[in-house]
Amino acid sequence: MSSFLLHVAVQPSSVGPPMRAARYLRGGPQLPRADFQLRPVPSGFAPQEQEYQQALLLVVALAGLGLGLSLIFIAVYLIRFCCCRPPEPPGAKSPPPGGGCVTWSCIAALLVGCTGIGIGFYGNSETSDGVSQLSSALRHANHTLTAIDHLVLEMVERLDEAVRTELTTLEEVLTQRTELVAATRGARRQAEAVAQQLQGLAFWQGVPLSPVQVAEDVSFVEEYRTMNNESCLSHGGRTNKKCMNEILSVRWWLAYVLLLLLELLVCLFTLLGLAKQSRWLVIVMTVMSLLVLVLSWGSMGLEAATAVGLSDFCSSPDTYILNLTREETGLGSDILNYYFLCNQAVSNPFQQRLTLSQRALANIHSQLQGLEREAVPQFPSAQKPLLSLEETLNVTEGNFHQLVALLHCRGLHKDYGAALRGLCEDALEGLLYLLLFSLLSAGALATALCSLPRAWALFPPRNPSASCSGSHLSEPFLHARLEPVPHLRSFPSCRRRPH
Amino acid sequence: MSSFLLHVAVQPSSVGPPMRAARYLRGGPQLPRADFQLRPVPSGFAPQEQEYQQALLLVVALAGLGLGLSLIFIAVYLIRFCCCRPPEPPGAKSPPPGGGCVTWSCIAALLVGCTGIGIGFYGNSETSDGVSQLSSALRHANHTLTAIDHLVLEMVERLDEAVRTELTTLEEVLTQRTELVAATRGARRQAEAVAQQLQGLAFWQGVPLSPVQVAEDVSFVEEYRTMNNESCLSHGGRTNKKCMNEILSVRWWLAYVLLLLLELLVCLFTLLGLAKQSRWLVIVMTVMSLLVLVLSWGSMGLEAATAVGLSDFCSSPDTYILNLTREETGLGSDILNYYFLCNQAVSNPFQQRLTLSQRALANIHSQLQGLEREAVPQFPSAQKPLLSLEETLNVTEGNFHQLVALLHCRGLHKDYGAALRGLCEDALEGLLYLLLFSLLSAGALATALCSLPRAWALFPPRNPSASCSGSHLSEPFLHARLEPVPHLRSFPSCRRRPH
Repeated sequence: MSSFLLHVAVQPSSVGPPMRAARYLRGGPQLPRADFQLRPVPSGFAPQEQEYQQALLLVVALAGLGLGLSLIFIAVYLIRFCCCRPPEPPGAKSPPPGGGCVTWSCIAALLVGCTGIGIGFYGNSETSDGVSQLSSALRHANHTLTAIDHLVLEMVERLDEAVRTELTTLEEVLTQRTELVAATRGARRQAEAVAQQLQGLAFWQGVPLSPVQVAEDVSFVEEYRTMNNESCLSHGGRTNKKCMNEILSVRWWLAYVLLLLLELLVCLFTLLGLAKQSRWLVIVMTVMSLLVLVLSWGSMGLEAATAVGLSDFCSSPDTYILNLTREETGLGSDILNYYFLCNQAVSNPFQQRLTLSQRALANIHSQLQGLEREAVPQFPSAQKPLLSLEETLNVTEGNFHQLVALLHCRGLHKDYGAALRGLCEDALEGLLYLLLFSLLSAGALATALCSLPRAWALFPPRNPSASCSGSHLSEPFLHARLEPVPHLRSFPSCRRRPH
Repeated sequence: MSSFLLHVAVQPSSVGPPMRAARYLRGGPQLPRADFQLRPVPSGFAPQEQEYQQALLLVVALAGLGLGLSLIFIAVYLIRFCCCRPPEPPGAKSPPPGGGCVTWSCIAALLVGCTGIGIGFYGNSETSDGVSQLSSALRHANHTLTAIDHLVLEMVERLDEAVRTELTTLEEVLTQRTELVAATRGARRQAEAVAQQLQGLAFWQGVPLSPVQVAEDVSFVEEYRTMNNESCLSHGGRTNKKCMNEILSVRWWLAYVLLLLLELLVCLFTLLGLAKQSRWLVIVMTVMSLLVLVLSWGSMGLEAATAVGLSDFCSSPDTYILNLTREETGLGSDILNYYFLCNQAVSNPFQQRLTLSQRALANIHSQLQGLEREAVPQFPSAQKPLLSLEETLNVTEGNFHQLVALLHCRGLHKDYGAALRGLCEDALEGLLYLLLFSLLSAGALATALCSLPRAWALFPPRNPSASCSGSHLSEPFLHARLEPVPHLRSFPSCRRRPH
């Protein structure tokens, strides 16, 4: 299965720093893909195509095959060990040769398993970090997009309000001098032009895709997720689809933690069983090891398929995301290229609208200044609406600068880069660590399953209460030990000398 | 020492999401601080004050005290074990009581040590991630600040060039009509005003503080740092201060990895020594354990002092950084508050300059349009400089929008937030994990040091070659085993049955 690790060749995106996982995996050869009829499948990321899905399912099936093979191997080994032992003379209580190495190899396998568990915890945490980085970047992008919409709405409403009230009042006041009324009408036209230009800047308005929804969809592997949908908690009986997603999503990260803890407990209790030579504990732990072995191979299949899919995605994310976003949002190529590429070669698609708005705002300002100079000495009642209009203009110009900053590609492109880094660096790295954990634990558990029954056969018969508490030896064991046993050494077991 | 963990109470900064470490540590009581005369010291972060430095040094000294106490305890325990053993009858080769529990407790201690090593690797990686996030945020902020300076410089140069060439040509061409010359002079005045306003926007020009320098100073705990200063590599003999910093910085992260690997090797070889009952290996590993114990307590002191200092810093970072930046840069409070707080309450300090520049640019545009309408039919040679001026104006307006986006607090404040999160979330969390590693390994090594000589005393005498390779037992051991030994059980050691 290690060729999957080689396969995952992440190429640096246009985002900037090369992905960290790529540092380890660059130049790995592409694994050939195949569908269920074993026809080759191109390795481009295309999750909606059936043959690509089949190629991923085939990866899962390979893990199933590995599980089957290892189970067959263990069964054959144990059957051979149980049935094909050389006949011992009856009454010979000496353990079979190589017993010490069997127990110590079991301990070594469990230590390897514990190392794998440590790696698994690290991988789970990395994956969760990566996904949480992705989802926080998406939420931030959503915040920017909605802020643009709100700001545009606010500016347009403010300008409309000014046109409806102050400019109308001003026209009524200045009605005696036609050239001043004309200047006021000019300002009104400019304000309407600004409002119209601004409305074209709220490009995300009415777009059916919400980054927050995407963030919620991907956050099912996140660590620090809480059940914040109260309706799910209060109406336990009527669990709708969203609540089910919520519950499932909380459980994904937790499932890995539970699997890791289960394997850790199995390893530790097996060691305890060996130390106390407790037969029932070792038997229970053998059964549990079998269970965890199946779970490990299952998780390995899922991880391998996800890693293969993710590495395909991460090898050229820009094109795929650009096409997907174009389809989902219906936005023009110029806008999407501007935000997804954000370099000198792509010009700002809002440049013209911004410049026109800016010029119109400056024109309104000079017209208002002209009116103040000309009209206020003659019509003192014009001063109040003029001051109010200048105040509106100042606020609008401040908001305009904020809008320019929000619309610039820097912010949204940085979110895009952070999201990609979260997914293709941290999450992919975490997945590879999880894969390593699954590999190590599958190997360690298979070794332990082979050696545990052999170690168990070395235990003194019928002595289930052996412990540090100073229980006494049972009779058959005492009898056996009364003969000289030159091959046994004084490796201390967990027992006190009877006083 | 666990009270240090409670102490580290991180409060959410104004940056946004509450720091993650705070989730674990919120509400921890403040540990009383003291200087060398044990006078209480306020817990505010003040690294330049002598009494605060003394309080941190006292934390290091506490770790030294812990090391001394644990060494004394181990020495007393071992002396008591060696000298005060109950006299055994000569020739009695049976091991002392409780031997099994001694070896298994030694194994358990080494397992705890291995768990600590796993935690240490995680903590080292988290710390390095946090510091690399901090330094990447600082580099990004530096990029923004220098981009502002360069953009302003470019715009001012472009406007100056236009004033010097095109506008002068235009004046010469239109010299016959004074009202057109006046309009051209008006445009020249506006252009000069824009250039003057713009120069005031390059607020970081001439500031002696460089975020990149800060990033280089803090990156001494970073993981993926390479020796990029070639002069350090080529002129090995003349190592200057910068090169020394470079070399030291590469070694900080590496030092932890080496310490962790050393401890892992000590644990594994001790287990191997116990398994093979190899006396010399256990003796060497006992000495190595003593060395690693000293190193663990040393690292614990450093980590505790750093964690205390960092938690003091992170409990209210804004005020400290604001004051420090004001001192270092000499920038006004309005600018610093705008970037460090970046909320609705703080207005953009560049608002007025931006608005004035924007209006002046719009005025230039309308004047140029007027000139084009009036002058070009009469003076066709005026068309070329006018077109060139409009081109310059368009580029300047595009650059102006970019400048507005760069000057807005969103970008720089996001970098500040990312830097703080890196330091106060990831790096602090990693430090706490490293502290936990040091605690676990100090405890585990002290236990191992107490039990290793006792386990070693249980080994069969003079049998250094015992191994899985099937070597034969030495005579004294054979002789000893010929007596009935009812308290020994058949826990298998690493030895084959002689054929």
